[in-house]
Amino acid sequence: MEHKLAALGRKPEGTCIQVGDVNIGKDFCIIAGPCSVESEEQIVEIAIEVKRAGAAVLRGGAYKPRTSPYSFRGLGRAGLEYLRKAGDITGLPIITEVIDTRDVYLISEYADILQVGARNMQNFSLLVEIGKIRKPVLLKRGMNATIEEWLNCAEYILNEGNPNVILCERGVRTFETYMRNTLDLSAVAVAKRLTHLPVFVDPSHATGKRELVETMSLSAVMAGCDGLEIEVHSNPQNALSDKEQQLLPKDFEMLLKKTGKLVEFRKQLEV
Amino acid sequence: MEHKLAALGRKPEGTCIQVGDVNIGKDFCIIAGPCSVESEEQIVEIAIEVKRAGAAVLRGGAYKPRTSPYSFRGLGRAGLEYLRKAGDITGLPIITEVIDTRDVYLISEYADILQVGARNMQNFSLLVEIGKIRKPVLLKRGMNATIEEWLNCAEYILNEGNPNVILCERGVRTFETYMRNTLDLSAVAVAKRLTHLPVFVDPSHATGKRELVETMSLSAVMAGCDGLEIEVHSNPQNALSDKEQQLLPKDFEMLLKKTGKLVEFRKQLEV
Amino acid sequence: MEHKLAALGRKPEGTCIQVGDVNIGKDFCIIAGPCSVESEEQIVEIAIEVKRAGAAVLRGGAYKPRTSPYSFRGLGRAGLEYLRKAGDITGLPIITEVIDTRDVYLISEYADILQVGARNMQNFSLLVEIGKIRKPVLLKRGMNATIEEWLNCAEYILNEGNPNVILCERGVRTFETYMRNTLDLSAVAVAKRLTHLPVFVDPSHATGKRELVETMSLSAVMAGCDGLEIEVHSNPQNALSDKEQQLLPKDFEMLLKKTGKLVEFRKQLEV
Amino acid sequence: MEHKLAALGRKPEGTCIQVGDVNIGKDFCIIAGPCSVESEEQIVEIAIEVKRAGAAVLRGGAYKPRTSPYSFRGLGRAGLEYLRKAGDITGLPIITEVIDTRDVYLISEYADILQVGARNMQNFSLLVEIGKIRKPVLLKRGMNATIEEWLNCAEYILNEGNPNVILCERGVRTFETYMRNTLDLSAVAVAKRLTHLPVFVDPSHATGKRELVETMSLSAVMAGCDGLEIEVHSNPQNALSDKEQQLLPKDFEMLLKKTGKLVEFRKQLEV
Repeated sequence: MEHKLAALGRKPEGTCIQVGDVNIGKDFCIIAGPCSVESEEQIVEIAIEVKRAGAAVLRGGAYKPRTSPYSFRGLGRAGLEYLRKAGDITGLPIITEVIDTRDVYLISEYADILQVGARNMQNFSLLVEIGKIRKPVLLKRGMNATIEEWLNCAEYILNEGNPNVILCERGVRTFETYMRNTLDLSAVAVAKRLTHLPVFVDPSHATGKRELVETMSLSAVMAGCDGLEIEVHSNPQNALSDKEQQLLPKDFEMLLKKTGKLVEFRKQLEV
Repeated sequence: MEHKLAALGRKPEGTCIQVGDVNIGKDFCIIAGPCSVESEEQIVEIAIEVKRAGAAVLRGGAYKPRTSPYSFRGLGRAGLEYLRKAGDITGLPIITEVIDTRDVYLISEYADILQVGARNMQNFSLLVEIGKIRKPVLLKRGMNATIEEWLNCAEYILNEGNPNVILCERGVRTFETYMRNTLDLSAVAVAKRLTHLPVFVDPSHATGKRELVETMSLSAVMAGCDGLEIEVHSNPQNALSDKEQQLLPKDFEMLLKKTGKLVEFRKQLEV
Repeated sequence: MEHKLAALGRKPEGTCIQVGDVNIGKDFCIIAGPCSVESEEQIVEIAIEVKRAGAAVLRGGAYKPRTSPYSFRGLGRAGLEYLRKAGDITGLPIITEVIDTRDVYLISEYADILQVGARNMQNFSLLVEIGKIRKPVLLKRGMNATIEEWLNCAEYILNEGNPNVILCERGVRTFETYMRNTLDLSAVAVAKRLTHLPVFVDPSHATGKRELVETMSLSAVMAGCDGLEIEVHSNPQNALSDKEQQLLPKDFEMLLKKTGKLVEFRKQLEV
Repeated sequence: MEHKLAALGRKPEGTCIQVGDVNIGKDFCIIAGPCSVESEEQIVEIAIEVKRAGAAVLRGGAYKPRTSPYSFRGLGRAGLEYLRKAGDITGLPIITEVIDTRDVYLISEYADILQVGARNMQNFSLLVEIGKIRKPVLLKRGMNATIEEWLNCAEYILNEGNPNVILCERGVRTFETYMRNTLDLSAVAVAKRLTHLPVFVDPSHATGKRELVETMSLSAVMAGCDGLEIEVHSNPQNALSDKEQQLLPKDFEMLLKKTGKLVEFRKQLEV
């Protein structure tokens, strides 16, 4: 594999990306929030909850890539504004997805981190556009992307001049139907050996089942990830998307306690 | 599966899309040309060859989605102009890929059919933008897209008001590494039963090996496809992309003869 | 790939296996019958039907590999006897599956062709045992077997001294859930280029849906297969296994007419 | 899913299987040893090494399922004898693979635990035969088996009267080619929620790369597994099989130290 800019040898100490108070790549970092921004009240309430539990970054989708055109596609610009407001109230940096090259600059004005979703991993125009700005970006692995293809997509962004790329494994598509996807934690271990970029894991989309999120989060920590992105909703059964996989704030809090202890343990083990 | 607009029941006689002299969906149609437009001379030469052999539409990539940022990414606007010129000289309608929402109008001025590639199948912003114009569009199935997801992407375009959607199966990604992808001809048979849209097959990308293109083209005809998209290059070993899968004009001509006879035979068999 | 004995170069004229009146590999051959032998009456009735329609070999399972231990696992030895009787009444050679090394000799006394199912493709002990006798064997491709692994399994049998191996593609397992499996017809085209062994296709298990069997049979013919194995049942909705995919005799008859014409056409095309 | 005997509800306290001094399912357990028994010296030397490092069970293949008939297929009965001797010298219980129904009784006389490999997971005759004895059995998940199919195979064994079944995840086959297989740790988390049987992980076959074995072992612990099966060889580069994935004894020792600490930590975390 040839990745001039993403290769570990290029920066053996690892990339560290400062966002608000958190140094991504250095400090273990939890991104949390609802799948979609549904209203100002909803996102502010969840922001307060996840902040209290210990999350470092707030997530929320305003522009949603949905399989069917008849599903809820997000609140768009209003969603961005509510999310920004929730970030300002809590002091949390915010991350949200970009699905259109034309939206990159607009969303960059609101968000602290941009997200490229699995379905757009190989939307090369979008990668190039994001590469032209310096905003941090979290790049999800495509559902059927090889590790090499994933790193090549990071390379597209780096090649345009934006060094602030975070990788995120979110499950690949296999024949198994019990989970929504098959979480590939060996890809995390491999990516940590091949590249200097921070590697996150999204256990919510990977499993699609909230009862598996905590276990897979802990497993992901030991695979070497630098952070987690977790879906949290105050009222999952009424969520407008991803009902089955969003955690309740109390369960998220428990997950954070365990994860925090395990990250400390991991540091000792590596000594 | 619920596809209000794409469902066969909506239009049992099938969608027919007129492009130049060819009625796609009614007449069997061959789209052919090089992977990439490489120069004016190259595309004009190949256009003349594929026209002579019997192709109905000329293909050529000007904006290329490439796995690595360091690969040839196409000639861009110059490529469009050369392709248009080759189309005008031969009288062949032209098809070319769109990979950015911002290019939809520009490319529509040059091309007779737009193409959405496998990697952009779920670039929903692009689908919506293409849905707002009336230009015919060939929508490739994603490498790991279910048939349902593929039809949902067609639905996105139809839902915006553009009825001129052609589906194209081009192989899915499996564990098998001998071929570039695994051509899923049963998806063609299924799509023909579920939707009124024309269904094409691209055996070049599906197999990635020129020695398999003819056989899989004939097999695709019997699976019920309405046309084929085939890569042809006068000098494949020096092509800037897809060296292994582009046919020589003389082999393409042979393929067209056999395909033509088989399409006639298929009509008799169905009586 | 290295397959000393299976390689096409070893026997460029192709392997021809005589079973009853049919020369498999030379004459196009249809194997048909129910998934399972359910009773003497059932198998005799179906044997007469498929014989009348033009099948050359009768199939029927006596020892059934079933996903759950609580499903019908076949009639065992009684099933063999009923199948043999149905073969004798109609004059059709019979094929049935072997799932245990200890049964190879017993089943060889009843059957004209042994079948190794997809789940046992890499049951190497079974392959070796079958290799020690000279009985023809139809070797199904595993659901996730590469073409190379499949040919290696044939090589196991050839290496023990049994040259009478027939390959059979029956669909691979992918992310697609609409069909039971994904029929890989390019594997047929590839196998015909790599080996001298006859290559069959089983569209019944590949699709799992009877409405797709005819189309995929015709498509398989053009992919170059030497024969088809098709499930037929006089009363599919009451079958003890594979209810959804078994054809009615009248539909099977129609399929055979079309297939026969297409095989003739294929011969002309190749001239 | 319906698994009468394997279902967690049937035995919520979990199955505990005593082998030698270890209570599998209750005590965390490491199975280690070479891929193949190559000679008496080799297996005795490795047995001593893995015993010293802390392994509880010794593995070694005598009957090897190999993709090609021309690969080393194991020493057979001599291999069994050497393995037994190595077990006796070190006091370690031994596990070895069974690939033929006819060998079940013979191998049971030598081995303390039988192993059913991934390629034989759905060799139902073998499962039935093993079910008839009471010998503990480690059942590997097939490379493309769903969790449901895997549990159904355990059910086959339980249904014949053998309650001593250990499940083992060893990676599934996907499009990713960087690793030998894709380790599915979410399947471990799921299996622990669905069944009372102990669940192991084999990170050696799952990754096929020794540099990933430690990381994936630690990750597997947090996914909830009850033990690990790890390939260890004193001289991997000269091994007769699986050269790339066998650990050196010193690396295995380090892995065991870390794993041991992590298992202790896991207990505290669950309180």
